[in-house]
Amino acid sequence: MKTRAAIAVAPNKPLEIHEVDLDGPRAGEVLVEIMATGICHTDAYTLEGKDSEGIFPSILGHEGAGIVREVGAGVTSVAVGDHVIPLYTPECRQCKSCLSRKTNLCTAIRGTQGKGVMPDGTSRFKLGSETIYHYMGCSTFSNFTVMPEIALAKVRPDAPFDKICYIGCGVTTGVGAALWTAGVEPGSNVVVFGLGGIGLNVIQGARIAGADKIVGVDLNPAKRAMAEAFGMTHFVNPRDVGNDKLVQALVDLTDGGADYSFDCTGNTDVMRAALECCHRGWGESVIIGVAEAGREISTRPFQLVTGRVWKGSAFGGARGRTDVPRIVDWYMDGKIEIDPLITHTMPLEDINKAFDLMHAGESIRSVVIY
Amino acid sequence: MKTRAAIAVAPNKPLEIHEVDLDGPRAGEVLVEIMATGICHTDAYTLEGKDSEGIFPSILGHEGAGIVREVGAGVTSVAVGDHVIPLYTPECRQCKSCLSRKTNLCTAIRGTQGKGVMPDGTSRFKLGSETIYHYMGCSTFSNFTVMPEIALAKVRPDAPFDKICYIGCGVTTGVGAALWTAGVEPGSNVVVFGLGGIGLNVIQGARIAGADKIVGVDLNPAKRAMAEAFGMTHFVNPRDVGNDKLVQALVDLTDGGADYSFDCTGNTDVMRAALECCHRGWGESVIIGVAEAGREISTRPFQLVTGRVWKGSAFGGARGRTDVPRIVDWYMDGKIEIDPLITHTMPLEDINKAFDLMHAGESIRSVVIY
Repeated sequence: MKTRAAIAVAPNKPLEIHEVDLDGPRAGEVLVEIMATGICHTDAYTLEGKDSEGIFPSILGHEGAGIVREVGAGVTSVAVGDHVIPLYTPECRQCKSCLSRKTNLCTAIRGTQGKGVMPDGTSRFKLGSETIYHYMGCSTFSNFTVMPEIALAKVRPDAPFDKICYIGCGVTTGVGAALWTAGVEPGSNVVVFGLGGIGLNVIQGARIAGADKIVGVDLNPAKRAMAEAFGMTHFVNPRDVGNDKLVQALVDLTDGGADYSFDCTGNTDVMRAALECCHRGWGESVIIGVAEAGREISTRPFQLVTGRVWKGSAFGGARGRTDVPRIVDWYMDGKIEIDPLITHTMPLEDINKAFDLMHAGESIRSVVIY
Repeated sequence: MKTRAAIAVAPNKPLEIHEVDLDGPRAGEVLVEIMATGICHTDAYTLEGKDSEGIFPSILGHEGAGIVREVGAGVTSVAVGDHVIPLYTPECRQCKSCLSRKTNLCTAIRGTQGKGVMPDGTSRFKLGSETIYHYMGCSTFSNFTVMPEIALAKVRPDAPFDKICYIGCGVTTGVGAALWTAGVEPGSNVVVFGLGGIGLNVIQGARIAGADKIVGVDLNPAKRAMAEAFGMTHFVNPRDVGNDKLVQALVDLTDGGADYSFDCTGNTDVMRAALECCHRGWGESVIIGVAEAGREISTRPFQLVTGRVWKGSAFGGARGRTDVPRIVDWYMDGKIEIDPLITHTMPLEDINKAFDLMHAGESIRSVVIY
């Protein structure tokens, strides 16, 4: 079949809209009509050539929502007409990782996914005679895409695609980091570094979990109002307290240090501050942001020996097929907010504007509606 | 009263044996006759002037066992004649840390302990008119010492002082790191870096917890036999596999990486290898060793984002008054071994030999018997 798609032809080139050929689903695979897709920093990271696994030409996009249009042989967990969210972190429920009960990082198709192909080693996309590669196992910048069955979360049919697509990455990454990676408990004091989309979602995760103080840290005072609407109780601007006094200011504000802190910036110096503002004895710091290639985190081992814990989170620790439908329910029940975070929408033809808005800091999230 | 003690007069000078004056216990304090004391690397670290909190002249020693000889006003948890182990990490059961249920790092007397004085701000030791300072709240290199009540673990009277003194630091630090900080479960794969006294105790902790593979890593092949006797199942010498291939060799040996790894070396490069040999998704690395001043640990944040956890352990995560008596029971029941680790004993007069043996790598643990 034919489908419209935005192709990443080379690093740092605008995406090109083409009609591409799409092979139908093979055994264990599903054809999905993508109804909406968010444009995420990770797409930009790959487009800028910073992703060591980045492959060109490819169809980016990993934050979508859509409808099952055809299923391949042996597919049992979804059927034609089901509403689904594509999962760049699948959940096979059978690999060592899924069975460990300790991680969401399913390894069933990791090898092929990183190479831009389906689990059988081939791509379903072509432009003329040229192979176009998949991206993060999703390629939601195509109106139709083919996914492995284990990488689809079936969700309720009454949820709006142009909002719940954001649950495919940003919402789950932030809310999940608070709930599942950190395990914020009622009464906790939490510090969130970076009040972009991920940080705002961490804040609403911490609010759901019953945190007491939710301290937001950002250089941009304009971020304050939205963060407060999402549950932030205190705002700290490093420019106001001085970078060298930031950690002590946060320790003072949280009565001895954060029970949980979150880096949502990708800056390795901020990651260090996030660890060091944690409470002696038990404070846990969670790295969510993706750092520039080659950058490393550092601290004195004394920080850990005196009880701080350093960890990270991918896709919020969420098991996609199990947890994503629950988050959709929470959105529909009004437990979490998404609408104010979707600041811009556009047709596929204007997708490059989404990257411009992101780089200009004007959007929280742009969504392409097909 | 008068008591014999080994005084640290200045950095890098031999300890001097003197008869010093000891004031009796004040309210909440206890006079203890130390019957035996181990000599630990931390004593050497302070004696070498590396400890930023080190104070001279002082009476070092923090790994003792003894008998209560007198109690001050208000003391209720121990009585004259009780056998006790001094605790450099006290357990007041009333401070924010003790009540958190998340850490063993009681903060009740931390401020004064770090300044070499009792909680009322004064020292009990004098040599002539000169104040001699306490050390780690213990000063077990004195035949008699005064301790706060909250820093004494009451233990069974039939346990031999010259063995259980080692539970005052090394045994608990190693066994506890496996049991309480890491929480090793049955079937876990464990990697232990450094097969000195701490490493051997981590190994027996992992064995008690039912670990499957217990991999020991050390540059010295002579460490192998004792480690195997304590429960090590596999030995890896970095010189045999090459430093640059060590992490991969350990990942291969543990079917994808360690569930739990432990640094018992104090070398920050080893700490990094210990983290990076952990299993993707859930492996946890515990820093036990004390690093040189100024050294930092580093890694790529990707290591944490893909599920590895970096933490540290102090006093094995043990709550001293609660857990130390249990470890004494385990020793008396034959559940853990101590005797082979006490390689040398000596009278107080020969205490400087204990430091020589440690630096020469000839001892696992030397014990002074008063």
